[in-house]
Amino acid sequence: MPKVLMLVCDGMADRPLKELGGKTPLEVATKDNLNSIAAMGINGILDPIAPGVRVGSDTTHLALLGYDPYAVYTGRGPFEAIGVGLRLEDGDIAFRSNFATVDENLVVLDRRAGRIQDGTRALAEAINGIKLSGVEIIFKESTAHRGALVMRGKDLRCEVSDSDPHVTGSKVLDVKAMNSTPGAEKTAELVNEFSQRVQDVLRTHEVNVARVNKGLNPANMLLLRGCGRVAKIQSFQEKYGLQTGCMTTTGLIRGIAMGLGMELLSTSEDYSRRIEEGLKYLKKNDFLLLNIKEPDEAAHDHKAREKITLIERIDEAMAPLKGFAKDNYLLLLSDHTTSTSYGDHTGDPVPVVIAGPEVRRDDVREFDEISAAKGGLGRIRGRDLIPIVMDLMNKSEKFGA
Amino acid sequence: MPKVLMLVCDGMADRPLKELGGKTPLEVATKDNLNSIAAMGINGILDPIAPGVRVGSDTTHLALLGYDPYAVYTGRGPFEAIGVGLRLEDGDIAFRSNFATVDENLVVLDRRAGRIQDGTRALAEAINGIKLSGVEIIFKESTAHRGALVMRGKDLRCEVSDSDPHVTGSKVLDVKAMNSTPGAEKTAELVNEFSQRVQDVLRTHEVNVARVNKGLNPANMLLLRGCGRVAKIQSFQEKYGLQTGCMTTTGLIRGIAMGLGMELLSTSEDYSRRIEEGLKYLKKNDFLLLNIKEPDEAAHDHKAREKITLIERIDEAMAPLKGFAKDNYLLLLSDHTTSTSYGDHTGDPVPVVIAGPEVRRDDVREFDEISAAKGGLGRIRGRDLIPIVMDLMNKSEKFGA
Repeated sequence: MPKVLMLVCDGMADRPLKELGGKTPLEVATKDNLNSIAAMGINGILDPIAPGVRVGSDTTHLALLGYDPYAVYTGRGPFEAIGVGLRLEDGDIAFRSNFATVDENLVVLDRRAGRIQDGTRALAEAINGIKLSGVEIIFKESTAHRGALVMRGKDLRCEVSDSDPHVTGSKVLDVKAMNSTPGAEKTAELVNEFSQRVQDVLRTHEVNVARVNKGLNPANMLLLRGCGRVAKIQSFQEKYGLQTGCMTTTGLIRGIAMGLGMELLSTSEDYSRRIEEGLKYLKKNDFLLLNIKEPDEAAHDHKAREKITLIERIDEAMAPLKGFAKDNYLLLLSDHTTSTSYGDHTGDPVPVVIAGPEVRRDDVREFDEISAAKGGLGRIRGRDLIPIVMDLMNKSEKFGA
Repeated sequence: MPKVLMLVCDGMADRPLKELGGKTPLEVATKDNLNSIAAMGINGILDPIAPGVRVGSDTTHLALLGYDPYAVYTGRGPFEAIGVGLRLEDGDIAFRSNFATVDENLVVLDRRAGRIQDGTRALAEAINGIKLSGVEIIFKESTAHRGALVMRGKDLRCEVSDSDPHVTGSKVLDVKAMNSTPGAEKTAELVNEFSQRVQDVLRTHEVNVARVNKGLNPANMLLLRGCGRVAKIQSFQEKYGLQTGCMTTTGLIRGIAMGLGMELLSTSEDYSRRIEEGLKYLKKNDFLLLNIKEPDEAAHDHKAREKITLIERIDEAMAPLKGFAKDNYLLLLSDHTTSTSYGDHTGDPVPVVIAGPEVRRDDVREFDEISAAKGGLGRIRGRDLIPIVMDLMNKSEKFGA
C-alpha cells in the first residue's frame, strides 16, 4: 500500500509584500525541489476552514487531519493538557496556565514569574493538594512558567472567561460565565474559588520564600486562559485505519497529535535529517504528519528575508521526496497564511500539492500562492484533504450502489 | 483603516447570447475601467447562494452582506414592511399587498385598482381600524396601489399561501396553511377573516364611492402575498463593527439595507455623481453598498443592446475607483445573473473582483463572466465575500492559537 506524508510548512504562505515588490516570499525564494513537486502533482488553493476564516495552528491541523474543529475544539486548554502528559476524561475542563507574580492587590507584575525554571514541580504538588467541593484538581507544570490545569467534576462547562489579564499592570480577572447556563456560572464560581486557594498556597510556599530572598519574582499566582471542555475524539488510526505518527517541534501541535492518538516522533534540528527520519518511519507505518514550524516564526517576527532563507533551506532538504512521491502520496502545503506584514495568521487560502500515483497532474510548475490557484484541484477546504487522499489510495467506502 | 466599497451592478452578468454571436453583454461592451479594476485585483466567480440556485435581489444582497438568507428571509413581506417605514417586532408576520378591484364574486378585475394614486392613506386608516381577536393589524400604504401589512400576535406563522391569485379573472384565493402546524392553520384562518373584514370596510368607503362615481376602478380589496415572519437580525454594524451605508434606487434593496440597520443615502440619476457621492460618504464611514439597478432592468426587458450601452455608461463613471482601490478595498460584482434571453434571474455564478492592498493579484485582465473564472479566487459563494475582506483588513478574529 502507498504511504502518505503530509508535509506542513507552518505559515509558509504569505500575502504579497511591498518590500518584495508585491511578491510573496514563496514567489521570491529559489525552490527547485518544491517546484518539482508542484510539477509532479495536482495543485490548488485550500481554505483551512472556510474563505477568510483565520485559524490557529491547532484548529487548522484538526481540519487538515479531517476533523471538524468547531466540534472538537472548544479551547486550547485540553490539547495543552494532553501535550504535557495529562490523561483527560470526557467532561473534564482544562486551562492553559502561567505562573505569575502579583502584588498584594492582585495586580500582575510579571506574567511569567521571572521565567521561573526551578521549583515548579514542588509548586505543582502544592496546587494538586487543593481540595474543592465536588471537583478534582489536576495540575501539571510544563516548561518554564507554563502549566496545564484540569478540573474534573459534574456539569463543568468551558464557557468561562480567562483570569489572565494578558497584560502586566492589570489585576487578575474574576472569571465570568460567558453564557447564562447554570453549569457555566457554577464553573466560574469554582474557578474563582480555586484561584483564591492558589494564592494562599503559593504565597507562603518555600520555593517562593527562597525566590524572594534571592531577589527573584515569586510564582505567587496562576493565570488561567483558553478553557476548553474535553470531548470524545475518535483517534486518527480508528477513523482512517492508518498507522500514524507526527513529527513536530511545536508543543501545540504535539498536543493535537496526542489528542488524536498519533505516535510522537522525535525531531532533529536539521531539515534533511527530519525528512530522512520521516521516510524511515513510513517504511513501517502508513501516515506521517511532518510539521516544520520555522517559516511561521519568521513571519510572526515580520522578517521577510529570513522567511525566504528558511524556505530555501527547507527546499534543499526536499530532494528525496521526489522519489517518494512516485509510489506514495505526498501532501505538501502550508497550514495557514502568516502575513509577514501583519505578523500573524490571516485567512487567505494556502497552496497545496497532492503528488503520487494516478493524480490528475496539471500544468502548474511552481509552488506558490498565485500559481497554485490555477491548478487542477481548484479551491478546496482543509477537511477535504484526507478524504481525497483516502480515495486516491482506494481506501474509501462507496456511498450508494 | 482602509474603507470598503461594495459595488453591485445588478443583474449585469448574463449568459452568452445568440444575438451577440455567443458572447455576453459584458464581453461585448467597451469597458476599460472595469477591465482595469479586474487587472488590479483578484478575480473569481461567485455563486450568490450555491451553484445553480436562482436568487432574488433581496436574498442575494443578504448573502453578499454575510447573512444566511435561509435563516433571515422567510418571505419578502418583512423587508417590504421595513422599507415603507413600519417598525417590526420579533414574531410579527408581514405581507406585501396590492389594492385591487374585485367584483361581487371576488373575481379580480384589476390587480392594481386603476393604479390608484389618491386616497390610499384614508383607506389605510380604515384598514387599521379593523379589530381581530388576539392579533393587531398594522397596515401602511406605499406608492400607488402598493402597501405592507403586518400582523402582530402570538404564534403567528409565515407558512401560509397568498390570497393574491396573481392574474386577473381569477377569484381571490383562500389563504391556506402550507404545513400542518397549529400555528400555520390558525394564521391562515386569521388572514382569511382579515380579508373578509377588509372587503366590508373598503366596499362602502367614501374614497371608493367617489372613484366609482368618477368611473375609476374602486380599491375594494387587498391582495396579500409574500408572507414572512420577522426574526431578530443582528445589524451589519454590530456584526462587523463597520459604519455602513447603502445607496440604491431600488425599494427592495432599501428594505434589506434598513432591515440590517444600514444608513440610507440619497442617490443621483447620474452614475458619476453616484460614485462621487459614494466616495464622499466613505471619507467619514467604513463601508458602502452601492447598487446600480439598471442593467438588471434591461435584461428583464430582453434588451441586449440597451444592457451593453448601460454597462458602457457605468464603466465611464468608474474611473475614480482605480485610485480608491490603491489604499481601500473595492468589491466589484454582479449580484446575480439576469439572462437577457430568458428575461429573469438565473443561477449562473457572477464575476467578482476584489481590488485593494495586499490582494494576491492574478493575471485576469478583463471583467466578464468567462475571464473571471480563471482568476485567483476560484469559485466562492456570496457569504464568503465579507469574511474575505474583513480578513484582508485584519479585522478578523483568530479561531485557535
